[in-house]
Amino acid sequence: MLLRTDRDTLLSPLATVCGVVERRHTLPILSHALLQADGEALAFTASDLDIQVESRREAPAEQTFRLCVPARKLLDILRALPAGCELQLKQQGSQLLLQAAGSRFQLQTLPAEDFPLLAADDDATSDLALSQGELKRKLGQILYAMADHDIRPYLNALLLQLDGEALRLIASDGIRLALQRYPLPHAQAPRQMLLPRKAALELAKLLTDQDEAITLALGARQLDCRLGDTRLRCKLVDARAPDYLRLLPDNHDCELTLPRLSLLQAVQRVAVLAHAKIRQLELAVRPGQLALRCRNAEREEAEEILPADWQGEPLDASFNLQYLLDVLSHLPAEHLRFGLGAGQRGLLVTNPDDPHFLYLAMPLRG
Amino acid sequence: MLLRTDRDTLLSPLATVCGVVERRHTLPILSHALLQADGEALAFTASDLDIQVESRREAPAEQTFRLCVPARKLLDILRALPAGCELQLKQQGSQLLLQAAGSRFQLQTLPAEDFPLLAADDDATSDLALSQGELKRKLGQILYAMADHDIRPYLNALLLQLDGEALRLIASDGIRLALQRYPLPHAQAPRQMLLPRKAALELAKLLTDQDEAITLALGARQLDCRLGDTRLRCKLVDARAPDYLRLLPDNHDCELTLPRLSLLQAVQRVAVLAHAKIRQLELAVRPGQLALRCRNAEREEAEEILPADWQGEPLDASFNLQYLLDVLSHLPAEHLRFGLGAGQRGLLVTNPDDPHFLYLAMPLRG
Repeated sequence: MLLRTDRDTLLSPLATVCGVVERRHTLPILSHALLQADGEALAFTASDLDIQVESRREAPAEQTFRLCVPARKLLDILRALPAGCELQLKQQGSQLLLQAAGSRFQLQTLPAEDFPLLAADDDATSDLALSQGELKRKLGQILYAMADHDIRPYLNALLLQLDGEALRLIASDGIRLALQRYPLPHAQAPRQMLLPRKAALELAKLLTDQDEAITLALGARQLDCRLGDTRLRCKLVDARAPDYLRLLPDNHDCELTLPRLSLLQAVQRVAVLAHAKIRQLELAVRPGQLALRCRNAEREEAEEILPADWQGEPLDASFNLQYLLDVLSHLPAEHLRFGLGAGQRGLLVTNPDDPHFLYLAMPLRG
Repeated sequence: MLLRTDRDTLLSPLATVCGVVERRHTLPILSHALLQADGEALAFTASDLDIQVESRREAPAEQTFRLCVPARKLLDILRALPAGCELQLKQQGSQLLLQAAGSRFQLQTLPAEDFPLLAADDDATSDLALSQGELKRKLGQILYAMADHDIRPYLNALLLQLDGEALRLIASDGIRLALQRYPLPHAQAPRQMLLPRKAALELAKLLTDQDEAITLALGARQLDCRLGDTRLRCKLVDARAPDYLRLLPDNHDCELTLPRLSLLQAVQRVAVLAHAKIRQLELAVRPGQLALRCRNAEREEAEEILPADWQGEPLDASFNLQYLLDVLSHLPAEHLRFGLGAGQRGLLVTNPDDPHFLYLAMPLRG
């Protein structure tokens, strides 16, 4: 007998780590999670060679053991068992025997020694303590702007920039950029690191909505995050991000404040008649109003007119429709401020209720 | 001006007919719906050449008109407009102009004459009046058993059999069969017809949960259904179904009554370790119990033991896991009765609370 416990003591930490387990992988060990019990607690660890997540729970046991279990199969079995039911784990040769009232499951295991644990980074210099809820809200407002599978590795990543009394979080796909500042109590030495896309998304999932602490240990090649009983460790992207802040326009020809939800719904309506490939949204600022327009290859056209508090020169610009939909749907703000310039200057979106947020989308060439 | 109305008067009938519009089709007219207004009501009609759905709503208008509008685009626009908002429809050359406060949409139309309306079947002989809610519940218990893209056309269909004082509804994929009887007040002349899979699924979606009437006009080559303001007309499958009733076993070596939900959850659990391709579920009936077992290619095994009221000879049989999951998840019954025979006899599932339901699954060859 390895362990006698209840379903939820196993399910909760296993569900926490399973997000990093790839569904298809050539290395069988990566579809497994390392299960360790030291007599007082048990811990699951999962890895994709770049990201490693460990989650612990208190679980008194007479025996200590370590073995690799098929992660998703065990997760599916535990989810299908009744909540709170009693479980027994036994070892039979290379198999793990899981028993509950009336149920018996034999799972193949792999030796614990084969599990590719990430070596600790001894160069960890800065330790940051942040609020999980605050970080989760900030990540939710920017992560959609990261690239996916771009050939420039620094775009498939979240940029963390320590600079004075703030941590800057920047996501960009090369054409648009979303930024959030996390103010810190003490000034920090300037440095920056690139968190891989999957690690950033996984971290956002692990964070709770509450004000509990998360500690980030910033190493030279690794980031190590501790959130309660859970720990995420990941390799950093070995690349240098461009100096995004230099791209930000310092003035606008036109500034509009618009209600977010009405604008989102108007963009969703004109989007129905957008060109299937180009996805172009035309903005036309006129005295007292903003017009949104989409046209498709079938010569169909949609137009929405919104009242706008603007009395200056007319101004026209075109953007990727999705870039507007993204920022409008991810921000919790009631109103957003839009800065537009003539020529190839971008569209700057800011939140009147949150000085730390900023979004820049470059125009489509006319 | 063609029409002045509110969003919901257009949205509700268009949403009703849009289910038959194929997303990809080589004939442009089939992505359109025919919109007709006769001054008192408006009607949308959609078709895929085999199935035609028409839905009407009262809508007073000064003008009568008929034109074909892009069905899904108009549906998406109407859905994105605020509920209850006022709309104006105008014609501009070959375009339809849709206007609401602040919104303007120009859609390409096609001539109404080009719409491929299904000719009426003059041979309609029997007229059946059924309850929509009752028919919907019965279809929900059997439609999952139809085949999809089988080379035998009579399997990609729902068989309707009029026989004496009942309408029999039979769905089969050649290896399993689900049957429901709809008792009729008067005896009917025997006849049968095959409703194409898509038409059967579409009909089930159109039915309400209520006791409102649906009238079926059974033609030689068509079925014509009237449900309130909506009408579905479809071509029948030109094939002959085998005499399924002869396949039903007339006796069993073993009969078990089991709680549906516990059995469903047990099958879901052992399914985690089922063979990825074969999906075999082994049933072993022993005195006092039923064992369910799955094994996969990695030599993993899952077993569930359920108490069963059986004291006869041991009996073993193997079935496709999905065939059990389907019947267990689509029946609303608290208990189900299972009839098992030795050799290649099938598994017969009946519902103690509903004498009209019956399900037969043939075994996997051992």
